Amino acid sequence: MSNYEFIMKLALERGFYFPSCEIYADAPAGFWEYGPRGVSIKNKFIDLWRKELVRRDSMMEIDGSQIMSKSVFVASGHIGNFTDPIIKCKKCNSTFRADRYISEKTGENVSERALDEEISQLITKYELKCQNCDGDFGDVTRFNMMFRVGIGPAAEEAYLRPETCQTIFVDFARVFKTMRGKLPLGIAQIGKSFRNEIAPRQSLLRLREFYQAEIEVFCNPSKLDDLPRFEQVKNTVLNIYEERETVTQVKAGEAVQEGILPNRLVGYYLSLLNEFYSKTGIDMKRTRFRRLSDTEKAFYASIAFDFEVETSIGWLELVACNYRSDYDLKGHSATSKQNLEVIDPLDQSKVLPHVFELSMGIDRSLYTILEHSYFQDFEHDNRIVLKLKPYLAPVSVGVLPLMNKDGLAEKAEGIFADLKQDFDTFLDVSGSIGRRYRRLEEIGTPFAVTIDKITMQNDTVTIRDRDSMQQKRIPVSELSNFFHCALQDSK
Amino acid sequence: MSNYEFIMKLALERGFYFPSCEIYADAPAGFWEYGPRGVSIKNKFIDLWRKELVRRDSMMEIDGSQIMSKSVFVASGHIGNFTDPIIKCKKCNSTFRADRYISEKTGENVSERALDEEISQLITKYELKCQNCDGDFGDVTRFNMMFRVGIGPAAEEAYLRPETCQTIFVDFARVFKTMRGKLPLGIAQIGKSFRNEIAPRQSLLRLREFYQAEIEVFCNPSKLDDLPRFEQVKNTVLNIYEERETVTQVKAGEAVQEGILPNRLVGYYLSLLNEFYSKTGIDMKRTRFRRLSDTEKAFYASIAFDFEVETSIGWLELVACNYRSDYDLKGHSATSKQNLEVIDPLDQSKVLPHVFELSMGIDRSLYTILEHSYFQDFEHDNRIVLKLKPYLAPVSVGVLPLMNKDGLAEKAEGIFADLKQDFDTFLDVSGSIGRRYRRLEEIGTPFAVTIDKITMQNDTVTIRDRDSMQQKRIPVSELSNFFHCALQDSK
Repeated sequence: MSNYEFIMKLALERGFYFPSCEIYADAPAGFWEYGPRGVSIKNKFIDLWRKELVRRDSMMEIDGSQIMSKSVFVASGHIGNFTDPIIKCKKCNSTFRADRYISEKTGENVSERALDEEISQLITKYELKCQNCDGDFGDVTRFNMMFRVGIGPAAEEAYLRPETCQTIFVDFARVFKTMRGKLPLGIAQIGKSFRNEIAPRQSLLRLREFYQAEIEVFCNPSKLDDLPRFEQVKNTVLNIYEERETVTQVKAGEAVQEGILPNRLVGYYLSLLNEFYSKTGIDMKRTRFRRLSDTEKAFYASIAFDFEVETSIGWLELVACNYRSDYDLKGHSATSKQNLEVIDPLDQSKVLPHVFELSMGIDRSLYTILEHSYFQDFEHDNRIVLKLKPYLAPVSVGVLPLMNKDGLAEKAEGIFADLKQDFDTFLDVSGSIGRRYRRLEEIGTPFAVTIDKITMQNDTVTIRDRDSMQQKRIPVSELSNFFHCALQDSK
Repeated sequence: MSNYEFIMKLALERGFYFPSCEIYADAPAGFWEYGPRGVSIKNKFIDLWRKELVRRDSMMEIDGSQIMSKSVFVASGHIGNFTDPIIKCKKCNSTFRADRYISEKTGENVSERALDEEISQLITKYELKCQNCDGDFGDVTRFNMMFRVGIGPAAEEAYLRPETCQTIFVDFARVFKTMRGKLPLGIAQIGKSFRNEIAPRQSLLRLREFYQAEIEVFCNPSKLDDLPRFEQVKNTVLNIYEERETVTQVKAGEAVQEGILPNRLVGYYLSLLNEFYSKTGIDMKRTRFRRLSDTEKAFYASIAFDFEVETSIGWLELVACNYRSDYDLKGHSATSKQNLEVIDPLDQSKVLPHVFELSMGIDRSLYTILEHSYFQDFEHDNRIVLKLKPYLAPVSVGVLPLMNKDGLAEKAEGIFADLKQDFDTFLDVSGSIGRRYRRLEEIGTPFAVTIDKITMQNDTVTIRDRDSMQQKRIPVSELSNFFHCALQDSK
């Protein structure tokens, strides 16, 4: 099994994630659910994101509707541009995403932005037929990836947002004004986005409904190097990968000086992102900021870096870092006929802010954390351990009575009841103690408290460390303080 | 202005909530956004819900997809039953929700479950015409309130879920098995639901896209009184309101004994809910559990209590507490052809669990907390104060340099930088100190730290209490500990 398959098995069997509507034959592909362990790690990941990015930089977090009006996506360009090329078999009606189909069948590298004519020519050139019935394909057409919904009895046209950031752009004027904003201002949001993928795949990695954590930094384009807080991060080491070059390890300050990064604002936010991920337990040696070429960038981006990580199934994009310039506010301003300029208080100039974004995929990030934490311990019984950072582990403490007699179970219940008020605690009474340790290790539980006969004599318990398997004995009265420190310090 | 209008003004001007897509003329009604203050209070409300319900009762929390397959809603009955009666003007095509239209025009009390013939008869009886053009209405028809979406290029039929609990029912078998569940087992979920209301209104109170916090307790129907942990809540006092009777204040234990509540399981969960809300700052004297009559209950409920609160615009339902029996699992089992029975380990019997649910509206709950906290202090300058529980306040601490000279601002920035790592902290440097206190009080900030000339001499600051307006002086080094205790103890 590959590590991807190991993680999938663990996810399905241990309550991390599993397919949506799985008891039904008509369950659509590309929809997944978080089980109890998945919810817990997701919430802790989001807490860390809030602490390390939103709170640290005094950003403002909003939470908007997922269904938005048609005008929003006329202005954003999604009605016109957010399409995939598709081909349909004239005989059996099978439909495929054209660029992918050609790549898979021929090995030819087809750009996501290839024109319909180019795609048609390739189909003719390679004489491609339907893989299901050998039929001929019709013309290349365009499929818009937004989900349309109809509002009210008249079914007014509206859409599920394909990226959470559109909410931030549309709400910018009110938030900036009522919250007394000052440029540069980060506005952040966690929420669902929706893309009607033609071929969703690989569980959490290409979903039709997915979680984004997006940050849009509104800035004055004439002051991108005027950022005193850049000092805080100038020594942060980034892995930067430019087109077809090797990875450069460079401090943020030097990267800006040498023109590897365009300005301090970009350098600052890439550094914050880097520092955030280094606390998630992802192996930072296997990460890079990859600068995208002009043919790879999204239609709204003028400069783009993808934060990528290496996994068992290749390099994955976790965060798109796009300098969107004034593309969005200009579009919304023109379509809505609202003036979205703001005053820069330093010189009282009017400015239509530019935007630099950190658009993070939460689901993919969680997958990567699981994969990079996965460890098979061949020296100890082939035990499987998720070496999660203690503050991200879905269960922080396991409580295990060594035996189910002599009052040990009741004692364990009391300790469990106390600890669960403050920590994610799991009481496990059934099975051998070794098997119970294994179950805790598999889901990454950093600490196990064992109640034994000595507990009944002097009110002490052992605490077992997941990674070292070492145990030490401490008084029950000190447990709460111990875990507070252990889960806090590790941040 | 009514209190509803006061809260609306505050919400719009101070970043609590505001209409979605508001810069666009085609913004659909019934969609609202949370601004920074709204997100903060919402997150804290959810944390409290997790602590007081999910964690306390060792429930399992999941997070599923919002788009679900058609079969789910065939089984749940929503395809057939989740409809509103509508009437359409034959002349101008205006469409109205029929039962509401009749109630508004005639004062006649039309049940949500009235049959189409009954509605038609009322329209004829009162000779109702279109309010826009005086035209005649066509026949009463049915409008399904679910939003339909099409999946993939073939636009396979699927729906945005109208209640989050369907996810829980569909996922029940896997969660129960992989998490080694035991009855009674609460499965909880926070998420969005969607209802295509014909006439959304009153901001957060009737939305087309809204947040639910739902708990489905799966139980063995033959053991509804077999619940040792009922002891913990037997003295919890509940306000129970039976059909057209006065409110009875009664302890949970007595309510079960006297048959006011049907069994201990229902009594236990209503009590947990009551204890949770008593910690939100809602005025519990203005709450009641109202037992619904047979004509009021939802189509899936066999016993139903609504947890209601009194507000300036009448009694609002915050939580629907429904005994759904085996309605849902039976439906999903029949439609999916899966056996959803589980083993009760106590006697090894097979059982198709029954369900008791606590279906909470988060948006409405937040509105109520704001309204019940709203206080105009006529003795002090007519100041407006949100007397929020400190642990729910969107900003916990305001940091205010008394003047913008003599190094006070820099000192304040240092204190702000320290505190914001652990607390929701806001630095405000502009305007008179009185005005800055007012701004903090309006958004419910429990504490203000003022940096003055004495601070520069001996490193002490004053802490001002929002409600009493009293100030006391403490060393800067003790601030963090002070706030940790103040925000913790108040829970």
